[in-house]
Amino acid sequence: MKVNQLNIKKDMSVSELIEQFDNSGVLGAGRVARASNLLVNMINDEDMDIFMSLAGPMVPGGLRNIVAGLIREKRIKVLITSGANITHDLLEAFGGKHYRDLGDNDEELNDAGIGRIADVYTRSDDFEVFESEIIKIFKTISNKLDNNGDNGIISIQRLLKEVGLLIDDENSILKLAAENDVFIFAPGLIDSMFGLQLWMFTQDNKLIVDAVGDMHYLSDLVFESEKIGAIMLGGGLPKHYTLASNLLKGGIDAGIQITMDRPETGSLSGAPLQEAKSWSKAKQGSNLETVIGDVTIIFPLILADALNRIDD
Amino acid sequence: MKVNQLNIKKDMSVSELIEQFDNSGVLGAGRVARASNLLVNMINDEDMDIFMSLAGPMVPGGLRNIVAGLIREKRIKVLITSGANITHDLLEAFGGKHYRDLGDNDEELNDAGIGRIADVYTRSDDFEVFESEIIKIFKTISNKLDNNGDNGIISIQRLLKEVGLLIDDENSILKLAAENDVFIFAPGLIDSMFGLQLWMFTQDNKLIVDAVGDMHYLSDLVFESEKIGAIMLGGGLPKHYTLASNLLKGGIDAGIQITMDRPETGSLSGAPLQEAKSWSKAKQGSNLETVIGDVTIIFPLILADALNRIDD
Amino acid sequence: MKVNQLNIKKDMSVSELIEQFDNSGVLGAGRVARASNLLVNMINDEDMDIFMSLAGPMVPGGLRNIVAGLIREKRIKVLITSGANITHDLLEAFGGKHYRDLGDNDEELNDAGIGRIADVYTRSDDFEVFESEIIKIFKTISNKLDNNGDNGIISIQRLLKEVGLLIDDENSILKLAAENDVFIFAPGLIDSMFGLQLWMFTQDNKLIVDAVGDMHYLSDLVFESEKIGAIMLGGGLPKHYTLASNLLKGGIDAGIQITMDRPETGSLSGAPLQEAKSWSKAKQGSNLETVIGDVTIIFPLILADALNRIDD
Amino acid sequence: MKVNQLNIKKDMSVSELIEQFDNSGVLGAGRVARASNLLVNMINDEDMDIFMSLAGPMVPGGLRNIVAGLIREKRIKVLITSGANITHDLLEAFGGKHYRDLGDNDEELNDAGIGRIADVYTRSDDFEVFESEIIKIFKTISNKLDNNGDNGIISIQRLLKEVGLLIDDENSILKLAAENDVFIFAPGLIDSMFGLQLWMFTQDNKLIVDAVGDMHYLSDLVFESEKIGAIMLGGGLPKHYTLASNLLKGGIDAGIQITMDRPETGSLSGAPLQEAKSWSKAKQGSNLETVIGDVTIIFPLILADALNRIDD
Repeated sequence: MKVNQLNIKKDMSVSELIEQFDNSGVLGAGRVARASNLLVNMINDEDMDIFMSLAGPMVPGGLRNIVAGLIREKRIKVLITSGANITHDLLEAFGGKHYRDLGDNDEELNDAGIGRIADVYTRSDDFEVFESEIIKIFKTISNKLDNNGDNGIISIQRLLKEVGLLIDDENSILKLAAENDVFIFAPGLIDSMFGLQLWMFTQDNKLIVDAVGDMHYLSDLVFESEKIGAIMLGGGLPKHYTLASNLLKGGIDAGIQITMDRPETGSLSGAPLQEAKSWSKAKQGSNLETVIGDVTIIFPLILADALNRIDD
Repeated sequence: MKVNQLNIKKDMSVSELIEQFDNSGVLGAGRVARASNLLVNMINDEDMDIFMSLAGPMVPGGLRNIVAGLIREKRIKVLITSGANITHDLLEAFGGKHYRDLGDNDEELNDAGIGRIADVYTRSDDFEVFESEIIKIFKTISNKLDNNGDNGIISIQRLLKEVGLLIDDENSILKLAAENDVFIFAPGLIDSMFGLQLWMFTQDNKLIVDAVGDMHYLSDLVFESEKIGAIMLGGGLPKHYTLASNLLKGGIDAGIQITMDRPETGSLSGAPLQEAKSWSKAKQGSNLETVIGDVTIIFPLILADALNRIDD
Repeated sequence: MKVNQLNIKKDMSVSELIEQFDNSGVLGAGRVARASNLLVNMINDEDMDIFMSLAGPMVPGGLRNIVAGLIREKRIKVLITSGANITHDLLEAFGGKHYRDLGDNDEELNDAGIGRIADVYTRSDDFEVFESEIIKIFKTISNKLDNNGDNGIISIQRLLKEVGLLIDDENSILKLAAENDVFIFAPGLIDSMFGLQLWMFTQDNKLIVDAVGDMHYLSDLVFESEKIGAIMLGGGLPKHYTLASNLLKGGIDAGIQITMDRPETGSLSGAPLQEAKSWSKAKQGSNLETVIGDVTIIFPLILADALNRIDD
Repeated sequence: MKVNQLNIKKDMSVSELIEQFDNSGVLGAGRVARASNLLVNMINDEDMDIFMSLAGPMVPGGLRNIVAGLIREKRIKVLITSGANITHDLLEAFGGKHYRDLGDNDEELNDAGIGRIADVYTRSDDFEVFESEIIKIFKTISNKLDNNGDNGIISIQRLLKEVGLLIDDENSILKLAAENDVFIFAPGLIDSMFGLQLWMFTQDNKLIVDAVGDMHYLSDLVFESEKIGAIMLGGGLPKHYTLASNLLKGGIDAGIQITMDRPETGSLSGAPLQEAKSWSKAKQGSNLETVIGDVTIIFPLILADALNRIDD
C-alpha cells in the first residue's frame, strides 16, 4: 500500500485533515488517523462500554470541558483518574481558576502563593475556597452515612458520587458523572489536596474511606459490559487500573493510548499496549493503538474528528 | 570553572569513575556526580531522614536487593511504592522468580502463561503460589484484627507491616521494613495483584482497608524528622505522595530524582524538582538534583559510589 | 490570565481547533497555538524571508507535497535538508513510491528488497530507477560544466538547482525550487543514496562538488534579507546550518522548531531555541517557539490553520 | 533464565558493577551489560575494524580525552563526527577551554561573549584564538597543495589529516588520528565554526574542499576490513554515514548505539539498529545493541569495564 503525500490547503475541517493523515498512514500522522478511526468504532459500537483513564494535569491543562462533555453525553461509562484531577475539577466548581503566564521562578511563585504545573498556575486563594467548601461537603456526607447505618464507611467511588451530587457547577466532572451514572474511580485519591482535606476532616469526624470496596462496583461494570474499549490519556495509576480491572474478563477489546513516555524503562506508563495481551489485560486480536504525543494536542484533535463520524 | 576531560583507564573503581564525572561536571555525567554527592550528604546528615519513592518495575527489574539492603541498614526511613512492587516482592518471597529472554510475541506469551514487562517476564505458576500464600496471610491478619477489637479496619501501611511480619524470606522488602521500623506506604496498593487478592478475600471475610488512615502515621513521620531528603526513583503516585506529604512542613530539604519522563506535558513524573518549591513541597534553598536516565543503571551506579563515602 | 477550558464540538475547522488551543494557552496545546500564530506572523511579514530546515524522513513520511507547495507559492526562500530527503524527492520524481504495512522483520524485508524507515518502506526496484536516472542527469550536468569552463567544479546548492531543472515531475521539491528561485542547501548531501551515486559517477567522470562554495550564496541570502524567520522541522545538521548561517548577521528574528528530542544531552537537535541567543544565532528579543511533538502531525496542523490567516 | 537481583556493596570496581548488571540482564542495566560485552568482543576480534561515530557536544562534554585515547591505542580505525566536535578539539588544542556554571540567561551570556551548550559554556576569547590559528593552518595547507600540483583541491578527510599534522597538542583528536593512521570523516564539516573559517579563507585563497572525494578512501577502508564493528555515540549525520558506508559490503558485523532519541518519528538518530538490516547496512545475524541513555554517562561506564577485559 502506498503512502499518499499530505495535501494541506485553506479552509480545511479537522476531519479533512485527519483524512489526509489516513491517506498517508505512516509515522505520527498515521497513528493519529488510526486512533481516530478506532475512537469512532468504539463509540459507534453499541455493545462496547468505554473506560477512560486520565493522568497528568488534564483538568488544569484545559481538558475538563472535554471530559465533562463525554460524560454528559454518556459516551464513557467509567472514568479512572487521579486525586489531582478531582481536586482541580472541584477547584473550578467552587469558582477557582487555572492561570497562565505567571513566570518560572519557583521561589518567587511560592512567595506569591502560586503553585506551578509546567506553564499552568494555581492560586492559594482558590485553594482556600476549595478547602472550606470541601469540608462542608464532607460534613454533609458524614452525616448522611451516619443516618444510613453505614457505620461511617464508604468506598472511594461512592464518596466521589456523593460529592458530585452536592456540587452546583453544571460543568463539573464530578457532578455530571453523579447525575449520568458514570462511575469515577480514583484508587490513589488520598494522594491529593482532596485527600489531605479528607484526612484533616477524619481527625475530628467519622469517615472511613474503604480502599478495597470499589473493586466490587468495578468488577460488576466489567462483567456487565459485553465489550470494553479503553481510552488512556497519559499513563500512571489510572492506565494501570483501567487495564488491570479488565483482567477479570480476559482484557479490553480495544484500546487507545496517548503518551509521551518511553517503553524501555519497563514502566507501564510508556509500555506498548501489545504487552497487555500477555497479561490478559487486552484480548488476543484486540485493536490497540498508541499515539506518541502531548494529550492536550492529540486528544482534542482526534475527538474533533470523531464527533463528525459517530452515529447519533 | 573548567570542564575537565574524562580520564578512563583500566582497573577503575566505581568511585574513581564518579570522581571523573565530578571533574567534568557537565551534561549527564555532571548530573550523576552531583546526585551521588547529594546522596552521600543526605545519608551522612544525622538529622536527615530519607524518604524513598519507587515506581516502575523496580523489583522485577533487579532492584529488590538494593532496596532491601537500604532498609536492613536503616538508611531510609520511609518507602513509598506501588502495589506492583509489593506484589513482586512477595512473589519472590514465596519462591517465585522473574525471568528473561522469553520472546516478544505477547499472544504466544499469554498462551504460555507468561506475563511481560518490557524484557522481564513472570510465570502464572509463581502467581498461583503468591495467591494461595497471600490469602493465608490475610486470614491471619483478619483474625488478629478481630481479636484486637479493631473492627476489621486497618490502614494500608499497617496492613503491609502485618504482612511483613508473617513473611519468612530474609530478603523481603516487606519483612525487613516490618522488622526495622521502616514505614512502607502504598497509597495505590489496591491497583495490583495484591489488591485484587485483597478484594477477593474481603468478599467472604471482614477486612476494611482504610485509605485515609496512613496520613496520620505519615504526618507524624514528617513532623518528627528534623530534615527530610527524598530519593525518587521513577515518577508516578510514589513521587507525588513523597513530595505532597512534605507539604505539611514546608517541603523536603534535599531531593534526588531519576527519571526518563519529559517535563513538557506537565505530568509530575517528568517535572523538574524546582517546581516543587512553588508548592512548598521542596524548601526554598533546598538542594535538588535530577538525572535523566534509566533507574536500573543510574541508581546502582550512584549507590555503589556513595557506599564508599558515607560515614559508618 | 486564565486558562480557558477547550471546547470541542462537531464540524470544527482546523482554525477553530487552534483557536481553542489559543484560548487554553498552556501545555502542548498552548505551544501549538503560539507556533501557529508565529507562523502566520512570519509569512505575513513582507520584510521577512523564511528559512526552512527539514530533517528526518519527511519526504517518505508524507510531507513532500507540503514542502513543494510552500516552494511553489514562494512562501519560503531557503530549504535546508538532508541528502536523504533529496534522494526520496527524486525517487518519487522518477516514478517510485513509498509504501506501508509491509511488516517488521528486517531480515525478511532485506530478502525482499525492501528498506524500512519505522513504518515507511521503499523498494529496491524504485531505487534502481533512481540510480539510472540520476546518473543520466549527472552526465548532463557534467557536460554543461565542461562547456561553461567551470573546470568541473560546482557547489552543492548549484548542483541541486541543475538537477531540479532536469526533472519532469511538477511536484518535485527540487524542480519547484529550481524554477521558483528557492535555494536548497544540503551540507551533508554526500551522506545519502544521492551522494553514493555521485561518488560512483565521479569515479569515471569529472564532477567536483565544492563543499565550501555554498557559503557564498548563503551569506548573500542572509545579508539580503531584512529579517529572517526559521521553521525548523526536526533537528540535526539542517537545524544547525539554519541557525549557524544566521550567525553572520546576529541571528534569526523569529523561529519555530518542532522536535521530539530532549534538551539534556546537549545535542542541538533537542536544544531550546533560547540557547541560540547566547551564540548570536537568534537575536535578542526574537520570538522563538518550540512544540514537542511528531512533525508529521504538528506541522500539517499548524500550516492548515495558518493558511486561513495569511494575507494573500 | 532468571533475573538475578543486583548486589551493590562497598569498594566495587566498575567491572564488578557491570557484572551485576549482566547477572540481572534486564531493562537498562541489561542493555549496558550487553553493550559492554559486545564492546569487548569487538575490540578483541583481530579481524574487526571499529568505526566510531560521534554526534552531539561530546568534545565540549568531556569525551575528548576518551576518543583521543582510543585513537592513540589504535582501538578504532575510523572516526566519523561533526564539524562542531572538530572545532572544539581544535579550540582546546589552541589553548581554549570549556566552562561550567555560568548561568542560563542566554541574552546575558551573549552580552558577555559566552556561548551555551546546555550546561557547557565557551568564551569568545577562545574562539578568537581558534580563528587566527586555524587560518594560519589553512594557509600552510593551501601552499602545500599548490606545490603538490593538487590544483587546490582536497577532500575533507585529507584536509583534516593535514590539519592534524600541524597541531602541537598531544591530546588532540585530529593530531593523534593523523599520526596513528586513524581516518576522520566529517561529511557535514562545513556546518561549523571550522567550516565558517574555511569559507572566509577561500574568499581570498585557493582551497577547494571536495565533498565527494572521501568516499574513495572510505570505500577502500570498508573493503579492506574483514569485519566492521560500529560504535555509534549519538545519532545524526555521523550515525547515518557510519551505517551507509557499510552498505557497500552488506552492512556492519556488529554495532552498539547509545542514544536518547525516540524511534517513532522515523528519524535515524533514534531508529532501532535492527532497521539497518533491511537496508543491508547491518548484516543478517549481526550482533546489535542499543542503550537508551546519555552518552557522557554510558560510554565511560562501559569503556571502563571493557578496558579490564580486552586482550593486550
